[in-house]
Amino acid sequence: MTMVNAYDPAAGDLLASADRALIARRARALGPAYRLFYQRPLHLVRGEGVWLYSANGERYLDAYNNVAAVGHCHPRVVAAIAGQAATLATHTRYLDATIVAYAERLVATLPPPLAHVMFTCTGSEANDLALRMARARVGRGVIVTSNAYHGVTELLAGMSPSLGPDVPLHPFVRSVAPPGHDEPDAAVRFASRVAAAADELAAAGHGPAVLLLDTILSSDGVLGGPAGVIAPAVAATRAAGGLFIADEVQAGLGRVGPSFWGFCHHGVAPDLVTCGKPMGNGYPVAMVACRTDLAQAFGKVRYFNTFGGNAVAAAAGIAVLDVIDDERLASNAAAVGDDIRAALADLSDRTGAIANVRGTGLAIAADCPTPTAASTLVNRLRDRGVLISATGADGRTLKIRPPLPFAAEHADQLVSCLADVLR
Amino acid sequence: MTMVNAYDPAAGDLLASADRALIARRARALGPAYRLFYQRPLHLVRGEGVWLYSANGERYLDAYNNVAAVGHCHPRVVAAIAGQAATLATHTRYLDATIVAYAERLVATLPPPLAHVMFTCTGSEANDLALRMARARVGRGVIVTSNAYHGVTELLAGMSPSLGPDVPLHPFVRSVAPPGHDEPDAAVRFASRVAAAADELAAAGHGPAVLLLDTILSSDGVLGGPAGVIAPAVAATRAAGGLFIADEVQAGLGRVGPSFWGFCHHGVAPDLVTCGKPMGNGYPVAMVACRTDLAQAFGKVRYFNTFGGNAVAAAAGIAVLDVIDDERLASNAAAVGDDIRAALADLSDRTGAIANVRGTGLAIAADCPTPTAASTLVNRLRDRGVLISATGADGRTLKIRPPLPFAAEHADQLVSCLADVLR
Repeated sequence: MTMVNAYDPAAGDLLASADRALIARRARALGPAYRLFYQRPLHLVRGEGVWLYSANGERYLDAYNNVAAVGHCHPRVVAAIAGQAATLATHTRYLDATIVAYAERLVATLPPPLAHVMFTCTGSEANDLALRMARARVGRGVIVTSNAYHGVTELLAGMSPSLGPDVPLHPFVRSVAPPGHDEPDAAVRFASRVAAAADELAAAGHGPAVLLLDTILSSDGVLGGPAGVIAPAVAATRAAGGLFIADEVQAGLGRVGPSFWGFCHHGVAPDLVTCGKPMGNGYPVAMVACRTDLAQAFGKVRYFNTFGGNAVAAAAGIAVLDVIDDERLASNAAAVGDDIRAALADLSDRTGAIANVRGTGLAIAADCPTPTAASTLVNRLRDRGVLISATGADGRTLKIRPPLPFAAEHADQLVSCLADVLR
Repeated sequence: MTMVNAYDPAAGDLLASADRALIARRARALGPAYRLFYQRPLHLVRGEGVWLYSANGERYLDAYNNVAAVGHCHPRVVAAIAGQAATLATHTRYLDATIVAYAERLVATLPPPLAHVMFTCTGSEANDLALRMARARVGRGVIVTSNAYHGVTELLAGMSPSLGPDVPLHPFVRSVAPPGHDEPDAAVRFASRVAAAADELAAAGHGPAVLLLDTILSSDGVLGGPAGVIAPAVAATRAAGGLFIADEVQAGLGRVGPSFWGFCHHGVAPDLVTCGKPMGNGYPVAMVACRTDLAQAFGKVRYFNTFGGNAVAAAAGIAVLDVIDDERLASNAAAVGDDIRAALADLSDRTGAIANVRGTGLAIAADCPTPTAASTLVNRLRDRGVLISATGADGRTLKIRPPLPFAAEHADQLVSCLADVLR
């Protein structure tokens, strides 16, 4: 399946020869499964705050990357990584104060009864572990949305329909359409689709089922904006005896605003929560959070992840939480996100070239008329020094999710550049 | 299932009150699935070379940790991590020279036709991906050894019998006894067990099967020492139309000596190779290496791992390869490993308290008469400032696998301390 916004080597030669040579070496060393962004891939050499710098000295406003959540190469996170890497980097089978302190800090951001945190290195490992834990209590069945992405392991690839038909869903997985942007009674109808899938899985012997949702429904087209839109579906899952895993790998840690977690924005109580991308600002660290009863049901199985929750990951993670607090990044995400949505809605009214502006905090989307229009727009913005991408089942949704320190001036630049391109 | 060398909170109070308090906080924040090593868990605060330092100022000789492969907090690796983290840490969908250079360096250590490297964050992700890739060419069936450990994902936990009966094997997995230390014609008999398992999987509709082997057979009791002992089994797998994945997560990058990879030590040609633990000296980075035909068979599926092969991981990985070369650590592993085995064999002859000394390079094992004897010995060594652990299906195998800069003086301390304890 073609990836949205992927570089196509067959589409003609728009590159400097040094980049062409590097792309050839890359293809030789990494093989054919890797993709690059943009018609003219970006060769990056430096990052700072919301800015990325290319090999030929150009500067790009980053309105896309959600991993460098507190800004590229944030000095406090870099110092924490460097300091701890020079001191000690072992694993969780020795006593270490840093890992305990980090787990306590994360638990403090979660509503009770979510009491424990287990560390992995990636969001994929976190979702995989959360499903293993859930299965200690329910069946194998899993319900996801129809263009979901939950990770790269064999278990998760088979419940990630966005990977396309070359990766079929597992027989114990059902996908349902997400709540549509314009769908009347979207929350209730989404819940009835989830309830029907739960019934179907139970009838097939796979129940009670797990509902696994990215709480901002990012790969479905950032459809998780309206507060509470997933709440009836969570209730339907519970009514069927199932469990709800909130996949906060993208939504978590303040991107949706001061509610801090996507599930809090929706006012629902997950049985398990996963997070990943923003946690270490680029350092590989991720987690599963859960209630005590679920930890105990799984606890007879011992859990060990060699790199997961090593002291450097914990030091990086604590620094990220400190920066989010000290720089008030969750409030900033809400305020700047609202401003961008208002400006995009205005642009939509004036030009008609984009529609359905939506999202929460700094997870923002709008639709183009066609996938080609979206791709053209994304590439023209790149040529003007602004980085976004496209997403959604039909690839015509603009995906805007900048680092959290994105300020009013950056929002202005993004919107005015977009207005230029649309003109 | 009880873990070998796990701390048992019920076994009595041997700890300082500060450590007791930290253990209580840890249990509260991390939940019940985590384990600690030793009857008196070690509270570590600093590492340097082959030394680890505890909170109360004691120094421990590390003869156990294979992640800090080039020595704890090696200054060249720390500098590489700190420098790159301060410069740029994005993902593989932008062009980046560091990741390409690292992939080329790794490919250069591998015999052709292994041509491509795909990056993950952990050995678990690497084995999981290798199996997904293999399945593009063969069936679902997998053959492992009877106390194998291959990782923490749902797919891999179900082919890791060492996790115990609470984690049942998948229906498409068969486990076979590893080549025994004293088994006559061990290589041939192991091959016939593998061939029988392949036949069984084919008959059950799961063939042709993958043979997935840790090339030092570490969790089975470090049984992969004799060069070529797995070669007939690999040939039998190929004869049945299957593929061989060399799990080098523990064996790779010089631990077995100048042959550099466990499969090279055995003179076999894997279809896929995975590596993890030593690659970043603690920074989470791992890989799958493969032939072009396998990469192409999988390449229609796009592969992306958010943190996998970011520039910091690549910088750390390059520094590790540089240090292994410049400090001649692979040769050191062979020489010092041989010396330790000779000294242990002598100790075995003189005391009769340990037996079956074996291994390759700095992957070393010997058997105690009982699991209790092994556990007692491991804990007494810890109390005398030397860290090893125990392993094997019955938990009576001493596991010695120090960082690669382990020198003659460290070997002397390990052996003389062991002699003291055995006296």
